Amino acid sequence: MEDRFWMREALEVARQGAAIGEVPVGAIIVKAGRVIARAHNQREQTKDPTAHAELIAIRAAASSIGDWRLIDTTLYVTLEPCPMCAGAIVLARIPRVVYAASDPKAGAGGTLFNLLQDRRLNHWVDVVHDVLVEESRHLLKSFFRDRRA
Amino acid sequence: MEDRFWMREALEVARQGAAIGEVPVGAIIVKAGRVIARAHNQREQTKDPTAHAELIAIRAAASSIGDWRLIDTTLYVTLEPCPMCAGAIVLARIPRVVYAASDPKAGAGGTLFNLLQDRRLNHWVDVVHDVLVEESRHLLKSFFRDRRA
Repeated sequence: MEDRFWMREALEVARQGAAIGEVPVGAIIVKAGRVIARAHNQREQTKDPTAHAELIAIRAAASSIGDWRLIDTTLYVTLEPCPMCAGAIVLARIPRVVYAASDPKAGAGGTLFNLLQDRRLNHWVDVVHDVLVEESRHLLKSFFRDRRA
Repeated sequence: MEDRFWMREALEVARQGAAIGEVPVGAIIVKAGRVIARAHNQREQTKDPTAHAELIAIRAAASSIGDWRLIDTTLYVTLEPCPMCAGAIVLARIPRVVYAASDPKAGAGGTLFNLLQDRRLNHWVDVVHDVLVEESRHLLKSFFRDRRA
């Protein structure tokens, strides 16, 4: 129930991205029942190839708490993290990730790669997926359908 | 010869990082014979878990040219990219990467993973490695030895 509550907030952030022409992916980072960072994709606005929702949220969360280690946090994201974002999650020592839709093109949370749970790396992440998956898929499909129209 | 020339510059940037207590990894991005971005690791200074040399250089290069696609560029880095940085290289469509030392703990340029050359992803990178490898290894070893002393 709590995961669905926070994923609803991540979906709301994703919708804000769609409204300004960004691919609707939203991420929030929660610590002790409080959102410490939220972001949607910003690549088109910023022309920054690294401006994915998760990466921006991780940087904001680290800045907020003054530590590069995001211990005791959960990252909620509406689409499975790509290799860059999964790598950043491991570097930031985020203990738990919840995502909605899987990404068959670049998913690194178990679909194409499983960087979040690779025993050769020095950090291992608990992963939950398929939370509000239909809402996330609908949002992405509507966005790309509208862009083609 | 040209690769060695630019790698020497990346090593110099890495040394500047070591001088302020950052793990000595340096990256430069070259386009049409000109350096458009250079960076060393900055995690300790910035408390940003994503502040690896390559990621910072990619963001700076995109900002410099006003495009998230870093076409016709070569990224030189003194240590094999980690999964986050390799993912960012793919997202930025960097066509060529040259690295010095391989990284047995997290290398994603062929050692633990080969994210730079995965045919399932939508971009494939030419990779050259072992350029000035001894210089890079020496720099990293000296840094960690001095820190333990």
